[in-house]
Amino acid sequence: MRIALGLEYDGTRFCGWQSQPARCGIQDALEQALSEIAGEPVRVHAAGRTDTGVHALAQVVHFETKAIRPESAWVRGCNALLPDSVSILWARQVADDFHARFSARGRQYRYLLLNHPVRPGLFAGKTGWFHAPLDLERMREGAVYLLGEHDFSAFRASACQAKSPVRNLRRLTIVRQGDMLIFDLAANGFLHHMVRNIVGCLVYVGKGKHPPEWMAELLQHADRTRAAPTFSPDGLYFSGVDYDPKWNLPNSGRMLECFPAPDLQK
Amino acid sequence: MRIALGLEYDGTRFCGWQSQPARCGIQDALEQALSEIAGEPVRVHAAGRTDTGVHALAQVVHFETKAIRPESAWVRGCNALLPDSVSILWARQVADDFHARFSARGRQYRYLLLNHPVRPGLFAGKTGWFHAPLDLERMREGAVYLLGEHDFSAFRASACQAKSPVRNLRRLTIVRQGDMLIFDLAANGFLHHMVRNIVGCLVYVGKGKHPPEWMAELLQHADRTRAAPTFSPDGLYFSGVDYDPKWNLPNSGRMLECFPAPDLQK
Repeated sequence: MRIALGLEYDGTRFCGWQSQPARCGIQDALEQALSEIAGEPVRVHAAGRTDTGVHALAQVVHFETKAIRPESAWVRGCNALLPDSVSILWARQVADDFHARFSARGRQYRYLLLNHPVRPGLFAGKTGWFHAPLDLERMREGAVYLLGEHDFSAFRASACQAKSPVRNLRRLTIVRQGDMLIFDLAANGFLHHMVRNIVGCLVYVGKGKHPPEWMAELLQHADRTRAAPTFSPDGLYFSGVDYDPKWNLPNSGRMLECFPAPDLQK
Repeated sequence: MRIALGLEYDGTRFCGWQSQPARCGIQDALEQALSEIAGEPVRVHAAGRTDTGVHALAQVVHFETKAIRPESAWVRGCNALLPDSVSILWARQVADDFHARFSARGRQYRYLLLNHPVRPGLFAGKTGWFHAPLDLERMREGAVYLLGEHDFSAFRASACQAKSPVRNLRRLTIVRQGDMLIFDLAANGFLHHMVRNIVGCLVYVGKGKHPPEWMAELLQHADRTRAAPTFSPDGLYFSGVDYDPKWNLPNSGRMLECFPAPDLQK
């Protein structure tokens, strides 16, 4: 039978999602735990392969197994075996033609950027950082040029293995909450480093190095070397996968809105 | 001259605030960085000594030095030398009779409790966890009994070195944000493990093991053995210190309201 899982992880101390000979991938940790619960080797397939240092709020994977276990055993049993920084949020039996990667209609990423003169301490590894003031309105103006279907070659890592550089960016919102900028992106799919490159370019726009229209020029020239450097993986979260409702997957990750703020009431 | 600093840290990989022979305290890391910038040995005094695994959003320390440096050198210079998980937020010269600990009129702590069937993954080390539903209204009712000046012996670790078990609890609020409960406490001072013991007891009330009035009984009996076990340090944040305005300290930590939430829009 085929089982789908939702999981979250802190990617800080892994070498990315993908299995590695050194077994430092999140996939390695997950397969080891699932294999133990299944009593047979298990191989997982993920909706998105996150890079080193990138986190997930709502990764989705599937695997095939002959083992019959209650859904709670996949969740609680594996969570007892997994490293602290990885947890399975839900498990559900799915149709045999469901595929975590190929059935996905869209993906979402979130990027957290601490915009403060002082580098992160408490949030080290969990947020990007830019020290100088950023003009949010300019960044939003720049972001609008990226919406829709475009050749995103200017925002694509040279190592990117995708066949086509064309993606449909359905959403790119930026909000400020205190000293944190929160970028939310949704697309049918993302090229390698696409979110981090977009954030890097929007920071250039926000600090006044380029006008908002520069984003349109970048798209047009389709030349990575004209764009800004890739931003840090620390602030990047794989935040959701969109599937057809026919697969009947739980829609839920955690409901986590807020993290501690210094208390300014005295 | 005397300098005060505000700092934040992730306590996960330290053995607590206090300097240790193994040099694993946050104080050790800070003194090493400050001594390097000062060009002479520096000894710091903190407003509150946090335990192993406890974090700070707004710790305050002071130190004496003969070195003349711009305030920015203490901040930026030290942040370049400190571990990633510690950062100095501000530095300010203060009067010679200011003392980070003894001048403090009050202290604040925040406790984050993930109330969700599945243990933390992404937030491992950064939040406490309770798996079963908690009745927030009952917990609030129980919390009210603790407000004001009381003998808090029932919530005091046996190792506590304070001369008196009497403290004035000025505030204890609990709010739910999604799956997270956020406890905010303010008092003139806190006994050892006091916040974690209060949270543990309120969880007992919230899960229905005891009625809200049990909190009043605990105070009355002043007997630690009647109370609930000490809750995990993972969710505890030293969130603020209250000083007389005459010291002219910056009031600011970060402005950080929110942390990433899975995106439920599709």
